Amino acid sequence: MGFLNCLGPRAIVSVLALSSLAHDVFARPSPEPKVPRIKGPGKAPGKRKMADSIKRAIAGNRRADVPDCAETTTTTITAPKANPWSPLTNEETATVVTWLFAQEDLNLTTTADAGSWDNTITLIEAMWPNKTDVLAYLDLNATAPTKYAHVVLNNMATEDAHYADIIVGPLPIDNVTTTWEPLSYPFTKKSGGTVRNLDADSDTLYVDWIYPISASIADITLDLWNASALGFDNDTLTIWGIDPQWQDDGRIIRWDAFWNVPSDEFDSSTLLPLGLYICSDVTGRDPSQWKFEGLLYNDIFYETIEDFRTAYWSPGFVKNPANINGDWSNTDQLGDIPAMDTAAPPVQVAPAGSRYAVDAEQKYVEWMDFSFYIGFTRDTGMALHDIRYKGERILYELSLQEALAHYAGNDPMQSGTAYLDTFYGFGPYAFQLVPGYDCPTHATYLNSSFYVEETCHTHIGSICLFEFDADYAIQRHSTSGYISITKNTYFTVRYVATVGNYDYTFSYSFYMDGSMAVEVRASGYIQSAYFANNQDYGFHIHDALSGSMHDHVLNFKADFDILGTGNSVQLVSLVPTTTSYSWSKGKARNTMKLERSFIETEDDGQFDWGPNGATQVIVVNENATNAYGEMRGYRILPFTGTAHLTVLNSSNLVNAAKWAEHDISVTKQKDTEPRSAHAFNSQDVWDPPVDFAKFFDCEPLRNEDIVLWLNLGMHHIPHSGDLPNTVMTTAHSGIQFMPSNYFAGDQSRRTVNQVRIDYANGSTTAVNSFGQYNVSSADATCKPDYTPVDGNLWAYTGDIVVRKFPFDPNNPFFETDSIV
Amino acid sequence: MGFLNCLGPRAIVSVLALSSLAHDVFARPSPEPKVPRIKGPGKAPGKRKMADSIKRAIAGNRRADVPDCAETTTTTITAPKANPWSPLTNEETATVVTWLFAQEDLNLTTTADAGSWDNTITLIEAMWPNKTDVLAYLDLNATAPTKYAHVVLNNMATEDAHYADIIVGPLPIDNVTTTWEPLSYPFTKKSGGTVRNLDADSDTLYVDWIYPISASIADITLDLWNASALGFDNDTLTIWGIDPQWQDDGRIIRWDAFWNVPSDEFDSSTLLPLGLYICSDVTGRDPSQWKFEGLLYNDIFYETIEDFRTAYWSPGFVKNPANINGDWSNTDQLGDIPAMDTAAPPVQVAPAGSRYAVDAEQKYVEWMDFSFYIGFTRDTGMALHDIRYKGERILYELSLQEALAHYAGNDPMQSGTAYLDTFYGFGPYAFQLVPGYDCPTHATYLNSSFYVEETCHTHIGSICLFEFDADYAIQRHSTSGYISITKNTYFTVRYVATVGNYDYTFSYSFYMDGSMAVEVRASGYIQSAYFANNQDYGFHIHDALSGSMHDHVLNFKADFDILGTGNSVQLVSLVPTTTSYSWSKGKARNTMKLERSFIETEDDGQFDWGPNGATQVIVVNENATNAYGEMRGYRILPFTGTAHLTVLNSSNLVNAAKWAEHDISVTKQKDTEPRSAHAFNSQDVWDPPVDFAKFFDCEPLRNEDIVLWLNLGMHHIPHSGDLPNTVMTTAHSGIQFMPSNYFAGDQSRRTVNQVRIDYANGSTTAVNSFGQYNVSSADATCKPDYTPVDGNLWAYTGDIVVRKFPFDPNNPFFETDSIV
Repeated sequence: MGFLNCLGPRAIVSVLALSSLAHDVFARPSPEPKVPRIKGPGKAPGKRKMADSIKRAIAGNRRADVPDCAETTTTTITAPKANPWSPLTNEETATVVTWLFAQEDLNLTTTADAGSWDNTITLIEAMWPNKTDVLAYLDLNATAPTKYAHVVLNNMATEDAHYADIIVGPLPIDNVTTTWEPLSYPFTKKSGGTVRNLDADSDTLYVDWIYPISASIADITLDLWNASALGFDNDTLTIWGIDPQWQDDGRIIRWDAFWNVPSDEFDSSTLLPLGLYICSDVTGRDPSQWKFEGLLYNDIFYETIEDFRTAYWSPGFVKNPANINGDWSNTDQLGDIPAMDTAAPPVQVAPAGSRYAVDAEQKYVEWMDFSFYIGFTRDTGMALHDIRYKGERILYELSLQEALAHYAGNDPMQSGTAYLDTFYGFGPYAFQLVPGYDCPTHATYLNSSFYVEETCHTHIGSICLFEFDADYAIQRHSTSGYISITKNTYFTVRYVATVGNYDYTFSYSFYMDGSMAVEVRASGYIQSAYFANNQDYGFHIHDALSGSMHDHVLNFKADFDILGTGNSVQLVSLVPTTTSYSWSKGKARNTMKLERSFIETEDDGQFDWGPNGATQVIVVNENATNAYGEMRGYRILPFTGTAHLTVLNSSNLVNAAKWAEHDISVTKQKDTEPRSAHAFNSQDVWDPPVDFAKFFDCEPLRNEDIVLWLNLGMHHIPHSGDLPNTVMTTAHSGIQFMPSNYFAGDQSRRTVNQVRIDYANGSTTAVNSFGQYNVSSADATCKPDYTPVDGNLWAYTGDIVVRKFPFDPNNPFFETDSIV
Repeated sequence: MGFLNCLGPRAIVSVLALSSLAHDVFARPSPEPKVPRIKGPGKAPGKRKMADSIKRAIAGNRRADVPDCAETTTTTITAPKANPWSPLTNEETATVVTWLFAQEDLNLTTTADAGSWDNTITLIEAMWPNKTDVLAYLDLNATAPTKYAHVVLNNMATEDAHYADIIVGPLPIDNVTTTWEPLSYPFTKKSGGTVRNLDADSDTLYVDWIYPISASIADITLDLWNASALGFDNDTLTIWGIDPQWQDDGRIIRWDAFWNVPSDEFDSSTLLPLGLYICSDVTGRDPSQWKFEGLLYNDIFYETIEDFRTAYWSPGFVKNPANINGDWSNTDQLGDIPAMDTAAPPVQVAPAGSRYAVDAEQKYVEWMDFSFYIGFTRDTGMALHDIRYKGERILYELSLQEALAHYAGNDPMQSGTAYLDTFYGFGPYAFQLVPGYDCPTHATYLNSSFYVEETCHTHIGSICLFEFDADYAIQRHSTSGYISITKNTYFTVRYVATVGNYDYTFSYSFYMDGSMAVEVRASGYIQSAYFANNQDYGFHIHDALSGSMHDHVLNFKADFDILGTGNSVQLVSLVPTTTSYSWSKGKARNTMKLERSFIETEDDGQFDWGPNGATQVIVVNENATNAYGEMRGYRILPFTGTAHLTVLNSSNLVNAAKWAEHDISVTKQKDTEPRSAHAFNSQDVWDPPVDFAKFFDCEPLRNEDIVLWLNLGMHHIPHSGDLPNTVMTTAHSGIQFMPSNYFAGDQSRRTVNQVRIDYANGSTTAVNSFGQYNVSSADATCKPDYTPVDGNLWAYTGDIVVRKFPFDPNNPFFETDSIV
């Protein structure tokens, strides 16, 4: 039960009673008769199902006789191998928790009982095996890699509060053979797998530090905004601050800002800054040693509360207006409805049912000639593994590594903000998707799970898989005698993670020509700035609001294995040239030519997309040439925009996000460098757990197992149209991977979903449809069952939670947490 | 009858007999009862239709009871003003032809009767009125601009064969008031509207020059390729050459190459180069003065045929293989069919019918709050005019200007090729679209017409209009308590032009947030090179074939009028900075800030997208600020890639395509500079009719009526996957226009096609669907009529032609021409 790893079989019964949706969602992963996996072209599973669906279609094109279309049921298959990146099973997680609590040397306390000076378990999840072991398993029929649990402990029962990455195994737990040891080999920081925890005293911080300060100026906050923050549930102000905290000169400095609490149900707090900031030195674990370092209002710095109060109540003090929620900050329908908008818009349907196959338990997917496994982790959410075309691996791994949102401003809040989002994690915020909105209604929805506080949460329907007909053809050519044209049907795997204010939609798409795309689109609430004095850092977008400028940079790992692991990165550049030729009679010509080169070592391993897109980046296998001697490969192609970080040597980040500095980085693959970042890099920006710069140590990169680290991103200068939410039409970034001399010819020629129409003298003389649908076209007519999706939306439930310690699989409950 | 300008009303009857498709196509433009245009929100036409369609839906969600969906019938409206860019009517064209032939000073001969020394009419179409006059008409209720015909004469009855642009008018023809005069004011060349015709002797060239040469080496071509070119219909070789011809030093030099003729029905000749090239000096109109200048084979230059023959029949002469058509060059289905491909793929349907309104006669379109007119010309195909949002003009014109395909190679054929495609024209090759492939089946298809050789051709169904549901939402935000999400339904206007080997799909899309996109995707056959010696100019992609490197650059005119004509181009750049703040205690911080500037004059009017996308380009109205003092505008945003020309000071182009040198150019709008190029720029590259560089004469650009000239494009290095055709998944380029502080907030908030789902404790507590579809959601369930499109494809007919001289509207016939 790897798929439903949080829930035991009996749990399903209980859950079903909770929600009518549960039936749909759980019906998919529940055991079904498996279609045996039949190898070979034209023998893939699903054929039989399609034949049935076609049988259901009866002849005749008259409207009244048209039958209903086939139902959309996902074809079930069995993965060729068990998923090496599958999560821990239900029982594995529970036994690891129990085992950990039994290790006296770990001195663990359950989260529910823990205070600021107790050790707790932050994370338990499967440790992804080393590539070396996985390749032996997948390619050489070695036994499956031994399973280990990756555990993160939050050791706060010490002056030096720290997180500790450890591994526990081998699994299953055996009281003799199972041990734990520090996990340090995948990290560049040589600290035995530990990194300090700057948030250890976060409870104390608010109760004993922030609220006393805000209470002490309640006279001012009430006068300014008729609001206060006293630490009560009905506080009308909220206070939070920079991330990462400043870590220079051995001190830990934080700036906190005052924000209005929305008076309605909308999550618009990040649109309501108030322009007051306080600075604290919170070095060390003894609050009595913490220091109030100053206060900023309207760009005037006050060293003490006293100074501020004196100034505030003096004549002539300039008071700025508040940002207050209203219709402008709410996402509901607002304004005059456009003409014809009240009619149902077009919608995509799947008249013949799904044309892909899924092993939901192993999270293995096949579409046309592509196949891949899905992995899912707390830090980085969904990853794709072992992406193959016709059984030949193209990518070993394609996965998000980290997402940075680096702000700037004249105020310390915006200036100090550079979110490294895997600290919060993408997995925990991969909320349930909305069918018909996030993905088509005909999509297949899978669950994902993550561990938190001795419970396992399952995000129901948080990954979707679907096929879609693009609005344009993939191929066409027309002449005065014929037209040849081919449908552009593609396949997408998607999930959405809402990390606080921002909703990231991650899409991985596959096309009939063998190309792929990775795309990120962003919506949700911007984090805005108080407008006063921020003119050089954003547009003035509402009453006292600045659309605070920021860079989004998202790092993806693309571990290509083109026909084996020995790959190179070739650069092919179009360069202007002036030259003469054997035929040009000595006359020089202004023209262009190609220059080819290779990235030789990691010294040259970081670079940007060049001017005018003139340099193409191709991952090739130098030893796998095609019939004409060209190296087979895949080109990396900017698609819907990319960006790297504008800021040079960021004061906020120091060494914590060196991956953000270039569009493309290339390293030699090492089991010791599986990820470019670490969830806790923000905790020690000078010496983070993973300093990406340290990956670059002159390793050769030709004919090696290489990894590309690719940045997507956008420079975001929010304008009034970002209110209330950023829109995904223009907030986008994407990269494509296209075959480059990889195949002998275009693979989309293989589809029957193309047509050649011959015509002459005003008549069609032939319609060559290549046996489309294996029946005459009239027979394939049917009526899809179209239902506006909101009829199904009463089944949105949020996360299902199962307690692991004590293990209580029969009493799941619902609880969804977002970052507030 | 502006829409069906080639065909009189009675012609429709005749045509109907010719094709069963004709019924569908002609049904749309034929007179229908007009729905009165009702102004004001919520009162747009179509409402009544939608209400009807909703009435048809009956209650109940059970499958058996679900009714058929509304039929997709385009809502008809009446344009608020007659389209100022409409084509000449049927009668106007005919009377202009007759009038022209009556002008003895023009000395015209009908094309059918003309030889190389006769004057003929190349083009008659509507002269687009000056913007000055159109704005007075549209905005100030002035009378419609006086109509004139734009006529191009091909004056070959002279030693100085030349094309002459003239205007004829005013229309309608009146033998007293109508005159003709040279058209020169829109051109930079000061030649009275004329430019030399380098193709005047093209018939002579082949018959008297090329074929004698090829016949003289038939012994060699037969030996090498078992093929010959003797000027017969059954020639097995074809010979054609560089474009533009070389025009240096007052000479006209052409290189011609030998190509195999495909032995099958496919248009793959451009994949079959043979590596033999001949050079001719064809200066002047007297073939007896032309000179054979040499021959190139395998990079060896032979000054005479004799030299070549001697070498060829000598021992050791290296003979290279031929490129021969085969399965690899055919576009038909080929290879093993992917798993599940034989089932019908997903498809988009429009269950409530169309949600846009069209005045087909005036080619006026409304979708949601957008409206625009469509224009269509021989040179540049479809253009959009007067694009408005809620009645406020955003763009006066958005139109293709020219498309360049600049090749390079070690051989003179590729080195000498730099197609300026409007010479061939986009209008004449905008072939009939294929429903379900080029555009959805629920699209509305419009016709387009063009003049050629005293006939008027109508491309049936060559423009499509459709709404489409993107596969991702436009907006979303989720929390632990609710999710708000909005459908991303957009509207696209598309046409496809196949200019010889290449099929360009042009799409103009409109989004609910007020953004727009212009995109070009390319398919069709590449023009390839013979491989030998071309290693530095392309990949080796087949037997003796090089995927000849080339740049596509397509220039678009974007004449923005943001809240009036007084606009400026603002640059907003994110720049890294090191600075200290009032609160940073003297410590400098590495961060970033915004720098704003304006393009002040045309001296600064040409620039490229900067590194890392750090500089944003926004067209603003400095005097139209929003409530917060920000200038309202639209940002120009790279979308799916752009490119400008790699070659510097191209020897082929000289001054003929100066627009290709930068990504963005900005000029002051002038009625004398309506277009950046001219169809005949290739005829005189040193002094072309329109030299774009001459537009830049220091004019001020702030608070002026400005025009942006934007380049889309791609650097194309074809690889084996471009065989047989380039695929549109990766051959793409696009730019978006996004509102920038233009609206107070996101306009997509106005749609009802959004939902907010509240949930708690495992249950949905509210589904707020904002009155979607004006009925309860269950009521809106229906079954769309899905029919695989190939059932409709037996109606593909090609162009309808009507003779204009003599005018013969009742005897239309079918004839479609492509560039061969």
